[in-house]
Amino acid sequence: MTEHTVIFDGVKKPVRVPTGTLLIEAAHLAGVDIGQPCGGQGRCGRCAVQITQGTVRRRSSLRLSPEDVAQGFALACQSVIEGDITVTVPPQEKIERRLTTDRTAIEVSVPTDYDPSFSQSIRRISLLLNPPRMDDQTDDWSRLRTALRQKTGVEDIQISLNLLKKMGAVLRENNWQITVITDARIELDGSRSDERLVAIIPDLVPEDDPVYGLAIDIGTTTVTVWLVDLITGKVEAQASEYNGQISRGEDVISRIIFSSKNGGQEELQNRVLDTINQLIAQVSKRAHAKPQDIVKATVAGNSTMTHLFLGIPASSIRLSPFITAVNQPPLITAGTIGLGINPEATIDCLPGVASYVGADITAGVLACRMDETEKLSLFLDVGTNGETVLGSREWLVTCACSAGPAFEGAGVLNGMRATKGAIEECWIAGANSEHPYEPTYRVIGKSKPRGICGSGLISLLAEMFLTGVVDKGGMINLSLVGSTPRVREGEHGPEYVVAWGSETESGQEISISNVDIDNLKRAKAAIYAGFTVLAQSVGVPLEMVEQILIGGSFGKYINVEKAVQIGLLPDMPWDRFKFLGNTSVQGAYLALLDWRYRDRVKDIASQMTYIELSADNTFFDAFMSAMFLPHTDINSFPSVTAAVENKSVT
Amino acid sequence: MTEHTVIFDGVKKPVRVPTGTLLIEAAHLAGVDIGQPCGGQGRCGRCAVQITQGTVRRRSSLRLSPEDVAQGFALACQSVIEGDITVTVPPQEKIERRLTTDRTAIEVSVPTDYDPSFSQSIRRISLLLNPPRMDDQTDDWSRLRTALRQKTGVEDIQISLNLLKKMGAVLRENNWQITVITDARIELDGSRSDERLVAIIPDLVPEDDPVYGLAIDIGTTTVTVWLVDLITGKVEAQASEYNGQISRGEDVISRIIFSSKNGGQEELQNRVLDTINQLIAQVSKRAHAKPQDIVKATVAGNSTMTHLFLGIPASSIRLSPFITAVNQPPLITAGTIGLGINPEATIDCLPGVASYVGADITAGVLACRMDETEKLSLFLDVGTNGETVLGSREWLVTCACSAGPAFEGAGVLNGMRATKGAIEECWIAGANSEHPYEPTYRVIGKSKPRGICGSGLISLLAEMFLTGVVDKGGMINLSLVGSTPRVREGEHGPEYVVAWGSETESGQEISISNVDIDNLKRAKAAIYAGFTVLAQSVGVPLEMVEQILIGGSFGKYINVEKAVQIGLLPDMPWDRFKFLGNTSVQGAYLALLDWRYRDRVKDIASQMTYIELSADNTFFDAFMSAMFLPHTDINSFPSVTAAVENKSVT
Repeated sequence: MTEHTVIFDGVKKPVRVPTGTLLIEAAHLAGVDIGQPCGGQGRCGRCAVQITQGTVRRRSSLRLSPEDVAQGFALACQSVIEGDITVTVPPQEKIERRLTTDRTAIEVSVPTDYDPSFSQSIRRISLLLNPPRMDDQTDDWSRLRTALRQKTGVEDIQISLNLLKKMGAVLRENNWQITVITDARIELDGSRSDERLVAIIPDLVPEDDPVYGLAIDIGTTTVTVWLVDLITGKVEAQASEYNGQISRGEDVISRIIFSSKNGGQEELQNRVLDTINQLIAQVSKRAHAKPQDIVKATVAGNSTMTHLFLGIPASSIRLSPFITAVNQPPLITAGTIGLGINPEATIDCLPGVASYVGADITAGVLACRMDETEKLSLFLDVGTNGETVLGSREWLVTCACSAGPAFEGAGVLNGMRATKGAIEECWIAGANSEHPYEPTYRVIGKSKPRGICGSGLISLLAEMFLTGVVDKGGMINLSLVGSTPRVREGEHGPEYVVAWGSETESGQEISISNVDIDNLKRAKAAIYAGFTVLAQSVGVPLEMVEQILIGGSFGKYINVEKAVQIGLLPDMPWDRFKFLGNTSVQGAYLALLDWRYRDRVKDIASQMTYIELSADNTFFDAFMSAMFLPHTDINSFPSVTAAVENKSVT
Repeated sequence: MTEHTVIFDGVKKPVRVPTGTLLIEAAHLAGVDIGQPCGGQGRCGRCAVQITQGTVRRRSSLRLSPEDVAQGFALACQSVIEGDITVTVPPQEKIERRLTTDRTAIEVSVPTDYDPSFSQSIRRISLLLNPPRMDDQTDDWSRLRTALRQKTGVEDIQISLNLLKKMGAVLRENNWQITVITDARIELDGSRSDERLVAIIPDLVPEDDPVYGLAIDIGTTTVTVWLVDLITGKVEAQASEYNGQISRGEDVISRIIFSSKNGGQEELQNRVLDTINQLIAQVSKRAHAKPQDIVKATVAGNSTMTHLFLGIPASSIRLSPFITAVNQPPLITAGTIGLGINPEATIDCLPGVASYVGADITAGVLACRMDETEKLSLFLDVGTNGETVLGSREWLVTCACSAGPAFEGAGVLNGMRATKGAIEECWIAGANSEHPYEPTYRVIGKSKPRGICGSGLISLLAEMFLTGVVDKGGMINLSLVGSTPRVREGEHGPEYVVAWGSETESGQEISISNVDIDNLKRAKAAIYAGFTVLAQSVGVPLEMVEQILIGGSFGKYINVEKAVQIGLLPDMPWDRFKFLGNTSVQGAYLALLDWRYRDRVKDIASQMTYIELSADNTFFDAFMSAMFLPHTDINSFPSVTAAVENKSVT
């Protein structure tokens, strides 16, 4: 088979590949890491590279302008190598890559109404064993069990082969004076069963020495880890980091597609494990804890994240009728999958409800106490999957609506995540100004803007709507061309320029096009349609909802007024909205500390009725009605009508 | 540090090693496999090599004659490299190495009085699942569990992460028609608990298709595997092979020493696993079974073999007060240690009693039905460890006596295992012959002799004693020098020549020296002292023993008459002796098939009273008394007195 030479700028050694190889694979061979946020589907345009010598066959050039193509730009995931080439990976890609390792600085709140008399499954027991003698030749393991039984009454306890291998030396190291850590299942009556040895320490450890656990939230975008002292319940350290899987797909569907490719399953598992292990190293260092002393971990994530974390194929989640392999994963030990804590530590992945309502939502319901309150409540996780729960302590219904990642900055040409350089809030001058279409904006981290993040997009779209830059269908008003240079026909159709090249970090203009707005509309329409259909399905008028609990780290940045103005949130008194931050990690934390909470998550998962929105046309109709700004039924948004009257230029 | 070049004849690439490196380590580096039957203690002389250029510093030259040393011979495990050398690994070592991969042809008998209405823990269940639909989105694992519950009533069942990873694809492969195999713990009342999924097969398997298990005996010398149809109880195939650990030590003590060295633990575990996996491949091929269909394995071995098989350090077994890490190892799955069958298969290592009375003995007691009989019985496992059990269904006492490997051909200069070329039986002409000191012998495999195996050594020693070649102290009668060329002063002291160089395969003479006889005497004295002290400790005269049950594959080759004549077995009517063959694998087979037998092994292990022989001087005194031929107390051996009178020359 014919082979070709591929040279990547800045990489010393050219690679040789056979005819027909995808450019992205050649990059992989050469050790060049090109992000594929859409999972290699040719959708996102983020893997664009420039061919400076030779040519490639382009299967698709979506997201590239004819000028881009003329300049040699090509999508690495869609370009077939059929001759020798030289490739430059452009700076924007390098920025994109760097982004995925940026630290996020999300502050998360620890539940404060937490009952400190918790029922912890981990316990630590000091034991003085009688050393063996010629007339007492009991084997080591029986000797340990006897001492444990005498001290605690535990009749039976399991030990792993790995711990058994180390036991003999540890028993002898400190002259048969040891401390053991055990874990167990706690029954509803508080009794312990399935007792299991987790650690043998060659020392008599003081009672108040800490022993640690982890609460882990695996988000599609962000992973959060809390290091918890299991004796006091105190959160000793917390850290967050982008999920290392991002460069292989920005939403769960892209990840599932990537995971179905050769080696994809393993790669995604390793990527999220790497992220978590880095976070564990951070929190351990900060709290001066040894990873070996972390003996338990509770994990909440959406169903896809949980499957990928455990290495379980998630392909059936993507295909009709959308089935998970498992909603209540079995307990495993950390060593089984290579989590960087005590290898005997139990990893408890909390239970989910369905393919698109996972453990992050059951944990969220636990954390927001929705299952305990008499108030009719709506819990929204405003993220890629747009999960919604409606109910109270009497009943709970839930759905998910596939909002897409637009609010997280993906699927929008100048979109980005909420890190340094992101426009997070935006204002357009409006009727009373001399220059009514001129914007001002606020940027995260006091730097020049690099793009627009989710809250910035909500804010921008609301302002564009209020000032008439877009109509209620979301189309940019081309009659303004001539009145303002901000509105024009751009490369990708009609667009509004938010920042001129002279203002931005890269020197490139930051604008928003009809295509981008369409993606944003789809996201907000899906979420709105989700909770309205959910309410409708149980015959509850939306106005009856007494509190709207908004979870997800994204939830903290939403400006309620703007979100209502675009029709993402319902038009209700603002005091009904509560922003709770990362409810997923909060729920994991509660379940980690107390088996009564752990049992409640299970109850929540089994009691929640899952409504599959694609089962009939109801959702689709509601979705189409919500594709307007703020909504086809403008009467549902009285506050918006007033705002438009106030600010509209025309 | 200074480095030297070491060239091994026949190995292309010389190795470079620092001053002070042991020659055996250099050989290891060069990929030259030199056996170390004594574990590198310089005791056995089997690692002798010839230095043809340069010199080494010899820490010890035990087993080497001054002539050997003059010719450059050196023990690889005792030679320190201090300059450039060239080394020849002599042919006898190559023979020794080849021996360890010879097949043994041991016939083993399947228990015939076996109850066919057995209580098997493995069961296979065909299931027709309802495929998921949009209005039935139960997760795969819950769907499977529900179908299983409906068919069998099993409320709870566990699944491993690995099986969970494969489950989704298997369920869909044959349109939700599957067969599952489950394993469980069977309680005394016959009920099942801890039900666990072992396999999911994408097919409706016919009821009478076989499903397999393995009964495995891990002997210090020989490993035996039976492939068993778990539904019919039939042994479909059996195979035996030398334990691959032999080249790293011939007795358990040498193995433990080797395992304590860097990497030794892993190497010994891998070696025995390699042996077992080869045997599994053999029996599977012969029975046309897929290793994947082998879903359970029961293992019997002495305590050291069990520890090394599981990778558990055995060092405390060797050191006073001689403690095992574990007598009842936990159940593990095959995948955990890399046994080549279904990775989810349970591996059940049967329980032992003490460091030197392991599961091979409890399995042996089970197989010989000693715990069921009213007859006072003596069970002997005539092997390296010389385990003995005395008792009946009322009580059982046991001891082990460290006989050493002399009867297995080790520790004797011309000793070898019972394979082709071994002298297995020997006669000396005696009083009525013209040439009273001339021997005749029988060789295994109709070839020229290469050495003498255990039964040959017993036979030879008995004949030498009867004819007066050795006295009752076991010393060769040097007054015969001159009367016969067979008796002479040799390189290693007084010796008797069994075969002249012209008769043997190698052209080297085969003889036996005072040193060899001393090792044989120690072995037989230890075994004899073991059972006499055991009988004494419970106040039972030996004559009261109604049956002597002899287990171990070695037991099949002993000529009772000769064994009595050297004082290895007590002088009793021959009809009291029963040779049972490999009782260890027979016991493993019973426990594999039937949980009632499995429970009995546990009872046997917990009811057996272990007598530690080194606890006082009783054993030592008995041992010293038994160091004569046949014994200090000749009155205990009336049949021997008669035989001596009949055959003695003087």
